[in-house]
Formats: sequence, structure tokens, C-alpha cells
Amino acid sequence: MLYLVHMQVNIPDTLPKAEADRLKADEKAYAQKLQQAGTWRHLWRVAGQYANYSVFDVAGNDALHETLTALPLYPYMSIQVTPLAQHPSAIAAN
Amino acid sequence: MLYLVHMQVNIPDTLPKAEADRLKADEKAYAQKLQQAGTWRHLWRVAGQYANYSVFDVAGNDALHETLTALPLYPYMSIQVTPLAQHPSAIAAN
Amino acid sequence: MLYLVHMQVNIPDTLPKAEADRLKADEKAYAQKLQQAGTWRHLWRVAGQYANYSVFDVAGNDALHETLTALPLYPYMSIQVTPLAQHPSAIAAN
Amino acid sequence: MLYLVHMQVNIPDTLPKAEADRLKADEKAYAQKLQQAGTWRHLWRVAGQYANYSVFDVAGNDALHETLTALPLYPYMSIQVTPLAQHPSAIAAN
Amino acid sequence: MLYLVHMQVNIPDTLPKAEADRLKADEKAYAQKLQQAGTWRHLWRVAGQYANYSVFDVAGNDALHETLTALPLYPYMSIQVTPLAQHPSAIAAN
Amino acid sequence: MLYLVHMQVNIPDTLPKAEADRLKADEKAYAQKLQQAGTWRHLWRVAGQYANYSVFDVAGNDALHETLTALPLYPYMSIQVTPLAQHPSAIAAN
Amino acid sequence: MLYLVHMQVNIPDTLPKAEADRLKADEKAYAQKLQQAGTWRHLWRVAGQYANYSVFDVAGNDALHETLTALPLYPYMSIQVTPLAQHPSAIAAN
Amino acid sequence: MLYLVHMQVNIPDTLPKAEADRLKADEKAYAQKLQQAGTWRHLWRVAGQYANYSVFDVAGNDALHETLTALPLYPYMSIQVTPLAQHPSAIAAN
Amino acid sequence: MLYLVHMQVNIPDTLPKAEADRLKADEKAYAQKLQQAGTWRHLWRVAGQYANYSVFDVAGNDALHETLTALPLYPYMSIQVTPLAQHPSAIAAN
Amino acid sequence: MLYLVHMQVNIPDTLPKAEADRLKADEKAYAQKLQQAGTWRHLWRVAGQYANYSVFDVAGNDALHETLTALPLYPYMSIQVTPLAQHPSAIAAN
Repeated sequence: MLYLVHMQVNIPDTLPKAEADRLKADEKAYAQKLQQAGTWRHLWRVAGQYANYSVFDVAGNDALHETLTALPLYPYMSIQVTPLAQHPSAIAAN
Repeated sequence: MLYLVHMQVNIPDTLPKAEADRLKADEKAYAQKLQQAGTWRHLWRVAGQYANYSVFDVAGNDALHETLTALPLYPYMSIQVTPLAQHPSAIAAN
Repeated sequence: MLYLVHMQVNIPDTLPKAEADRLKADEKAYAQKLQQAGTWRHLWRVAGQYANYSVFDVAGNDALHETLTALPLYPYMSIQVTPLAQHPSAIAAN
Repeated sequence: MLYLVHMQVNIPDTLPKAEADRLKADEKAYAQKLQQAGTWRHLWRVAGQYANYSVFDVAGNDALHETLTALPLYPYMSIQVTPLAQHPSAIAAN
Repeated sequence: MLYLVHMQVNIPDTLPKAEADRLKADEKAYAQKLQQAGTWRHLWRVAGQYANYSVFDVAGNDALHETLTALPLYPYMSIQVTPLAQHPSAIAAN
Repeated sequence: MLYLVHMQVNIPDTLPKAEADRLKADEKAYAQKLQQAGTWRHLWRVAGQYANYSVFDVAGNDALHETLTALPLYPYMSIQVTPLAQHPSAIAAN
Repeated sequence: MLYLVHMQVNIPDTLPKAEADRLKADEKAYAQKLQQAGTWRHLWRVAGQYANYSVFDVAGNDALHETLTALPLYPYMSIQVTPLAQHPSAIAAN
Repeated sequence: MLYLVHMQVNIPDTLPKAEADRLKADEKAYAQKLQQAGTWRHLWRVAGQYANYSVFDVAGNDALHETLTALPLYPYMSIQVTPLAQHPSAIAAN
Repeated sequence: MLYLVHMQVNIPDTLPKAEADRLKADEKAYAQKLQQAGTWRHLWRVAGQYANYSVFDVAGNDALHETLTALPLYPYMSIQVTPLAQHPSAIAAN
Repeated sequence: MLYLVHMQVNIPDTLPKAEADRLKADEKAYAQKLQQAGTWRHLWRVAGQYANYSVFDVAGNDALHETLTALPLYPYMSIQVTPLAQHPSAIAAN
């Protein structure tokens, strides 16, 4: 089941740089692991912003919530979720 | 080059049903042709709304504009465009 | 799987009263059938508005979309969907 | 009498972790006590956010205010209240 | 129990003037009857707008909804409700 | 002359608790004095929020501004003012 | 007493041109009479819009409301009122 | 050439009081000098807020920008500019 | 003097097509004449929308207002104006 | 390919002045280098604000993102991007 997720990252100035760097590295590793597993189906940068639009393929709302709250940068993100359904004109199944 | 496009359809009551049906059929054919060509890379329905999120792969802003304004339902759509860039953590190229 | 759904009804003046009355009766029958089936788990009126907050229990995004677009008053509704997950402090399962 | 309540939690970085953990534990205990008493009728997590939608069943506006301001995390919450009325198509009484 | 209610009136051009005048007269009579009964405790015009802020004293959410939907101009109003509680610094009971 | 005033209180974490308590006590005393004088005609708590809706009866815009800026908690408030006029259907004079 | 007033004019297509022209002429005559009387102290066009910002000098909220609702184009205006007070750094009295 | 300018002042708690007082005194002196010169034509307090609406009479956009950025409190202001044109019903030239 | 202008075109369904076509042709001719004269310095289409961002070089607010209200499609446009000043890092004069 | 970019600068009080000055100098040098290269085609100050509207001419979304994130002040900017297409009435090519 697919969800469009918009994530905006706001890392505060008060977070030490080393800690921020560690979180970003963890985030990247986590993101790539989930992409390889097919859970994080798409990951695009919003041009000009520290934000992304992503598409997740998960079993449902609970799985989505668990996946997102496990993001290393989750405490510094503002997240919006849009549930996606099959479009009748789409040539591919969701 | 990828763009996330949000389309909200608002067909007015004053449009005769036959004309609306014809436009919807044309829209579907056009959408499927563009999907097969790889231009309209993704097409998802927003759950609960007469709206979609789509991803277009086009040569640039002009090609995107031409593609969108050629939509049979374009005169009845409210459209928002978000340009997408390669995300450094993405495992696939855009 | 639960979704909170906000529906605002805007029936235009141009719809003949007999047609509006028929749609409202159909809507009521449909709503009660879905409630009895357990799909439409909660239905509350927003005080002072021709609007409701509802909770649907469906298999996922596609089932939700099909259920909502089948509402007799769907063409005259503005709908917002919020996917709900299990809250760790809730004493009941969703 | 029912109210839909949206709570968004924003715990500042400056709150010591031990204090935050204590508040969260208190919040959970309080939430479960009120759920068992029937006051906090529903508690759902908003998928992807540190937020919830809840339904409270209280004697009225004063009781609701007292209940909400007694939440251990109340100082760190942004709260919106929607009063709910009986929907004419609902098969259950509020 | 008190509620602050904001009502904005939007009578469409398509409503015949005689019908609009009748509705306004009915609205005035209804408003004055409820004021005399103590239900519609305050009624103020928003300066410069066809809108009012009102305070209603009713048994609860259901009574409020019934009172508001019985307004003769209700179909042409946009209404927002704010539930009010006793303020600890107020010298009068609500 | 009446004004509806919405006050939202945002006391920062950095204000020492003793200072905040003193300001709140001053605010309460000031509010009660103005209510007894008839200047602060109504004071209601917004259910679920650290906010109030109030009605002030003052000589005009200057008197209102002086009254509000003299609030002990004024530096920590976000204030919105709505000027009120006599409603033609009101049975009481403003 | 001064008020800043923002007026946005939205004359519908359905109003016959002769009627619209008559209303505009009446509006102009009324505006000039009030300016000469000192009630309508300033009248400025918002560049690029069918809108104005005005300053009215009236006895209070009731007088302002009467003045504004007597505007010939009032039924086609969206109006926002901001009450103005004496600024401590102003060299002129309001 | 006239511009309506809305200034909202937000002095942070972290600014030492002596520095804030000095800036406010400088701001007042600067405002009065510009008023006497005719550049800052009007200065009104927004009732209930630490904000003002002002009208500036300057040679153009560059002069306006230079005037506003020279305000001693400029670093702590949120500013909105509306360019004003001659209104055809105004009896005075801008 | 430069202004950034955002124009959104909303031609109603009720305008006869021939009239709309005539207005669009007039608009194009007018736009090209002003571009050749240097008044309408830039004209860009917003990708995916019936809207444009333009830069006008005019003598001031009055000239801008006259230029914009003379647009053949002006009655069907929603226009927002942003006055532009010389940027200190720009290598070209405005 | 052209993009309209709105940048709003928010340098926090906590950034040491010397560091802020260095970043501003770097920003200016970078901006001028890109202008000379033709990448940063236009740069205008928004009158009254620490903000600018710019037009960039780059190969596409990725080049735009790289260019913007390389801005020395990027970490302190809020950026909005609008992709621009050729306008059919423009006399110059984008």
C-alpha cells in the first residue's frame, strides 16, 4: 500500500555538529536499506529545500508510522502523509 | 528531469454530462499513452479526493508545461508543480 | 485499518430539491448499511456545520477510496483523510 | 457529550531527557486511567506525526478543559477542540 | 454551557429578494425569541461585515447544533464554533 | 463601545517560574479589577487552550490599546481585536 | 477615532453593466461627500487591484459600521477593519 | 509616491533591556525626524498589538527600502509593503 | 522602477468563446507592444498554470496601476504586486 | 532553463557577528560570480524585507539544487522555487 510522504528537515543550531553528522549518516544508511528492501520505493529531493518527497510501500498505517518514527532524523522532521490509491488510468498497479 | 505534479479536478455542474464523459475518456487515453512513453512516470489517486499526485519525466520546464496544458481536463484542473532533484541518499538515479 | 475522515457537504442551489432529497436519503441508507457492517465505525456531526468527522475501518487506501467515492453525496463533498495508527497509550487495539 | 480533540506534542530540546521521560510516563498512565473510566473514549496516533486525534466524553466544556489542562504534557501541546453532535444518520447514540 | 459562535452570512444573488427579505425577518424574530429565552445570550455585529459574533447558552453540543441549524438563514451561513469554559479570573460564573 | 479580544498566552520556558507566577497573579488581580469596573465585560476561557475570548467596553481604540498593553502578561500575548457594533436584531444595547 | 479599512470589490458578471455603472457613480459621489466631510480621511488605490485602503475618522464602531454598510457597492465588497490607536512616536494626533 | 507599510515588532527576550531601550529611543527619534521631513506621512498604532500601519512618501522602491532598513528596530521587524496608487474617487492627490 | 507582478487568469465559463479569443488576442498584442517599449521587461509562464510572473519597469505606482488595469484580461485576473529595489549584490542596475 | 526563486534570509541572533559578516561577504562574491557567468540571471531585493526574488538559468532541477545549496547563507534561508516556461506572448526566448 502506497503513501506519499513529505519530510522537511529542521536540525536546530544547538545540536552539536558531530551529532548531526552521525544522525545524517545513520539516516542515509537507513534510507538505503529500506530502498533496497522495497519499502521506501521512491526518494526525491525537493529542489532548493532541505526536504524530500518519498513514496513508501508498507502493509498499512501502523507499518508506515513505525517506519517513519524509526528515521534517525525523525525528531527534527516535519512530516505530512498522503494515502495513495490505485488510479483508474494508471497502467501499473500500485 | 522529474517533477511532482498535484492535479485537482473541478468539473463544473454546467458542463453537459456527455461532454464531461468525452473529456474523461480522452484524459484516460492521453494519460495512458504518456505513461507508456515514459513521460508520465507515476500516477496515483489521492485517497478520498478527485485528485492525483503524478511524477513526470520530461526534458524541462517547457516540455512539462506543454504536456500539462495538453491534458483534456486541463481547463478544469488546479495544478501545483514541484521540481525534483536527485536525492543524495537515493539508490536509483532520477 | 482506521482513517479519520472529514466531510464537508456543499450542495449547490442549482440542484433540484427533489434530487437533493433523494441523494440525502440514499446517503443515509448507505451510511447506515456501512455502519452496520463495521466499515463506517464512527459518524459524528460537527456542531454548527453541515459536516462530519468519521472513522472508517477498511482494508487499506484503495478500499477507503472506493467506499468514499461511492457516497451518494460524494460529488458535493470536500473530503480530507488522516490515516490513523495504533497509539502506544491506547488500551484498545485499533 | 463528545469532543474531537487534536493534540500535537512539541517537547523542546531544552527539557532534560529524564524530565521528558517522566512526563511521558505520567501522560501514559493518565491517558490509560481516563480511557478505563470512559472519559477518553478514543485515542489514535496520527500516522507519521507526534500527534493524536482523540474523542472525549465529558459533562461539558468545563470538564473538557479541566481534563485537558491536567495532561502532564499539556504545557507542550498545541490543542484544537471540535464539539461533536449526534449525527442523524448514526446508528449509535453519541 | 457557553459557546462563542461566528456567523458569516452569504446570501446568493440568485435568491429572489422577497424570499431573502422573508428569511431575514424570520431570522430576526427567531433571534429575538432566543435572546428573550436566554439561549442566545449575546449578539454583536462585526463592524464592517455581514457577520456576527454570538454567545449561546445551551445544554450542550446537541442543543447548540439544533439551535443553529434552525436559524432561517442557516443554509446561507458559514459558522465557526468555539466552546467556552469558566475562566479562573472571571468574577462571574459562565 | 465593545471590542471582542482574543488573547493567546505564550510564556517562554526561559521565564523563571517565580516571575511567571507573579505575573499571573498580577494579571488575575488586574483582570478582576477591570471586570468590577465594567471595562472588561466578559472573560471566557477557550476550552483546551491557554487562551481567552474577552469583551471590553471602553471609550474607543486608544482606551482599548492602553488597557491591553497594561496587562501584566501583555509581553507574552498574541492579541487579535474585532470591533463590535450594535446588531439590529439584538434586544439589548451594546 | 481612526480605522484602517481594506475594501476589495467583486462585482459579479451577472450584474447588468448599466446597474454596475450606476452603483460606481453613486459610490464615487458618496466617497467624495464623506471625504469632504472629513469622515473618509484617506482613500488610496492598491496598485494592480480593484481594492483600496482607506482611513475613516468616525465616532466609533457603530458609526463606522453605518458608514460602510451605506456604501453603494457594499454588497459586492469584502471588508476588513483594523482599529487604530495613537502611536507614541507620532507627531500628529490621530 | 505612497506606500502602506505594516510593521510588526518582535524584540527577542535575549536582547538586553538597556539595548532594547536604546533602540526604541533611537527608533522614536528617527520616526519623528522622518515625519517632520514628510517622508513618514502617517504613523498609527494597531490597537492591541506591538505593530503599526504607516504611510511613506518617497521617491520610489529604492528610497523606501533604504528608509525602512535604516530603522533602528529593523532587525526585529516583520514588514509588509503595499504600493498605493491614486484612487479615482479621492479628492486629494497622493 | 521595477515591480514583480504575478497574474493568474480565471476566464469564466460564461464568457462566450469568441469574446474570450478576442480578449486573448488583444492581450497578446498589448503585451508585445509593452515589451517592445521596455515597460514590460520580462514575461514568464508559470509551468503548469494559466499564470505568469512578470517584471514591469515603470515610473512608479500610478504608472504600474494604469498599465495593469489596461490589460484586456484585467477583469479576469487576480494580481499580486511586489515592489523591487536594487540588490546590493546585483551586478546590474535595476 | 529558468526558475524564479524567492529567498528569505533569517540569520539567528546566536550566530557570531564576525561569522555572519564573513558569510555575507562570501554570499556576495558567490552571487556576483554566478551573475557574471549568466547562471544567476536576475537578482532583485524585495522592498522592505531581507529577501530577494531571483531568476536562475541552469541546465535543470539538479543544477538548480546544487547552485542553491552552495549559497553560503543557504542554511539560514527559506527558499521557494517556481519553474518558468516560455510564455507565448513573450518577445524574447527564455
